Amino acid sequence: MTLNNTINDMTQYMQQIGAKARVASSLLAAAETAIKNNALNVIADMVIENKEWLKNENNKDLQAGREKGLTDALLDRLALTDEGIDNMAEGLRQIATLPDPIGSISNMDYRPSGIQVGQMRVPLGVIGIIYESRPNVTVDAAALCLKSGNATILRGGSEAIHSNRAIASCIQKGLLAVGLPCDSVQVIETTDRSAVGELLRLNEFVDVIIPRGGKGLIERVMKESLIPIIKHLDGICHVYIDDDADLEKAVSVAYNAKTQRYGVCNTMETLLVAESVATEVLAVLADRYREKGVELRGCDKTQSIIADCIPATEEDWGEEYLAAILSIKIVAGLDDAIQHINTYSSQHTDSIVTQNYTKARRFLREVDSSSVMVNASTRFADGFEYGLGAEIGISTDKLHARGPVGLDGLTSMKYVVFGDGHIRQ
Amino acid sequence: MTLNNTINDMTQYMQQIGAKARVASSLLAAAETAIKNNALNVIADMVIENKEWLKNENNKDLQAGREKGLTDALLDRLALTDEGIDNMAEGLRQIATLPDPIGSISNMDYRPSGIQVGQMRVPLGVIGIIYESRPNVTVDAAALCLKSGNATILRGGSEAIHSNRAIASCIQKGLLAVGLPCDSVQVIETTDRSAVGELLRLNEFVDVIIPRGGKGLIERVMKESLIPIIKHLDGICHVYIDDDADLEKAVSVAYNAKTQRYGVCNTMETLLVAESVATEVLAVLADRYREKGVELRGCDKTQSIIADCIPATEEDWGEEYLAAILSIKIVAGLDDAIQHINTYSSQHTDSIVTQNYTKARRFLREVDSSSVMVNASTRFADGFEYGLGAEIGISTDKLHARGPVGLDGLTSMKYVVFGDGHIRQ
Repeated sequence: MTLNNTINDMTQYMQQIGAKARVASSLLAAAETAIKNNALNVIADMVIENKEWLKNENNKDLQAGREKGLTDALLDRLALTDEGIDNMAEGLRQIATLPDPIGSISNMDYRPSGIQVGQMRVPLGVIGIIYESRPNVTVDAAALCLKSGNATILRGGSEAIHSNRAIASCIQKGLLAVGLPCDSVQVIETTDRSAVGELLRLNEFVDVIIPRGGKGLIERVMKESLIPIIKHLDGICHVYIDDDADLEKAVSVAYNAKTQRYGVCNTMETLLVAESVATEVLAVLADRYREKGVELRGCDKTQSIIADCIPATEEDWGEEYLAAILSIKIVAGLDDAIQHINTYSSQHTDSIVTQNYTKARRFLREVDSSSVMVNASTRFADGFEYGLGAEIGISTDKLHARGPVGLDGLTSMKYVVFGDGHIRQ
Repeated sequence: MTLNNTINDMTQYMQQIGAKARVASSLLAAAETAIKNNALNVIADMVIENKEWLKNENNKDLQAGREKGLTDALLDRLALTDEGIDNMAEGLRQIATLPDPIGSISNMDYRPSGIQVGQMRVPLGVIGIIYESRPNVTVDAAALCLKSGNATILRGGSEAIHSNRAIASCIQKGLLAVGLPCDSVQVIETTDRSAVGELLRLNEFVDVIIPRGGKGLIERVMKESLIPIIKHLDGICHVYIDDDADLEKAVSVAYNAKTQRYGVCNTMETLLVAESVATEVLAVLADRYREKGVELRGCDKTQSIIADCIPATEEDWGEEYLAAILSIKIVAGLDDAIQHINTYSSQHTDSIVTQNYTKARRFLREVDSSSVMVNASTRFADGFEYGLGAEIGISTDKLHARGPVGLDGLTSMKYVVFGDGHIRQ
């Protein structure tokens, strides 16, 4: 593999990576559970054993980043600390303990013709992952794909190239140690941006692309990819406080959904409040948000209740702030709330606070988002909180996987038929 | 809606269709099971009541087809007979009796945080279906999409435009009669080819495209679509007769898989035979195929066993004949067979004939096709035979739906969370 950044024929280089991944994928698909788990544990050992080296390599990236004038936030995401490396190893061991989804057969039912038909869970094949600066994604993504029997082609951010190469080397050693093909996990060893374009055209070899990063990356991938995508575009999440809400629960959920963490996709960005309870609930909530330093932007009615509220514009309803900012709209009731959500939501996560049975059922059925909640904080929309054991991302797509994507989301089902010489009449 | 074939602004026309479908889709998603079933039964009545008119409209297409010099086979596919119309109505009533997949909630489990998490089955939204001459697809596709709560945009072949418009009018009347939005099912009312291109770019309004037709159509859709596709490309299906096969079952399965019907995708195109049993089994099979008029094309070894066998070329292994032609290859054993299949198969349906437990398990696990079978004819790969109750097509894709696609394949799962004021710590 070329460690050089100047690759003369990028198309050929990427075709080779694709072809090698395809070969590895059929060996991986048939690999026994114990071998895959063993590989994950050995890679965890390698990561711990090579901690000092990993930090040294990461330092090269950090230094280059500082010279390039990366922001502190970006440098922070890029840094591999002792704790970060321990967490990587812990994550690997954790994925080793999860049940193996591959080969599991379900619903083997007899049909009137005499054949027995069911479905077997199988890997997708080759997964291409394109991500930005966080180097721990290299390990997380590789581990989830390995456990689910998929070969992986990883393309990390150019700022993390030394860290990613070093992590890849630990992974390769682990694969080798247990006898799995090295090409099961390949890291693209160049920072040349054209490699991404080539990867998105490898539809002969790659079954799905998972982009993880900002909106710019996702939009580029959507535009250029010839390969199906599992993507997460943005998280414009809502909490709707209904007329029939328990106001204590409402305050608790709406406060938590906004303030528990600001920069993540399952944070509430817009609060909707039914007119009949708005004065009472917003009086309490405005104080708590103010204390926490959350900037409030409201509709006209909200402004008449919260004196220091900034006017919200049409743009606010479609904005993912990822910051201590909240837009607030007072709505007539459930219909109005559902309509607002189905218009402005990014179909990520939306929650209703109500004690009313019928309205809760309607909200669940009629809000078209990947997670719909009753009396719970949107911050729960997460693979670990949902019990998936791990998460490669949250999908806002509708096809294949919706919401948090765990091991099952990296698999597919094929039909299995048992006969005994059965023929079709 | 413009009944005229000259639409000045195709982009605008298709955008309107898309926008109307999106509005209808949210009403349909919330529609009660009884109303959807009622609509299907009323449409069945309309089809029967309007039988003579449907045949008259169909005659216009047949006449135009004859003038255009369509082949008898194509004219045959285009024709709406009394029996064909009765079958359409029967199909509609059949789909009305199937369980409604929408809204079904499964696996509601409590998590350590106290929230309860499960999944609800929901429609995909708006489905675009592009198909060729068979007008009965208009009813079948519309019925499956309606039952699964999806709005549909149908684009049939230009040869069937009068028939499709007439069928669409029956569907619209049925929708109107039960109070469902007319735009739940829209037929593109122009034969202008640019409408297909516009449909494939309606990613703002359409959630999935299902092309049904020949390879030319599928390849055009793959190239142009900005929308995810559920497609069936081709069916290069294999039967492998193993060393440990029961030879009577082998002959029966291999004969049925080829000859029960020639022009369909789940027909065997290549027969693989283990060397140790080749002489014995091919002697019997060659006679039966010869009687039936099947042309045999074999590898060198096959030619030495079957005297009148035509030499097979490399192209034969990748060919979907859809005709009374069979290619035969003698292989060393299971490994060789699996390798041949994973190289040349279109990942549709492949079957092993064996009495050996271990080899059957290996074949099931290692053959990467949407249906894998043991001791059964490939002709069983079908939604009705699998018990799906109906079928919109067979997917050779890996993402979302693999193999026969029934109602569930037209749906997705969203997460549902119940709390009682729960917040994330």
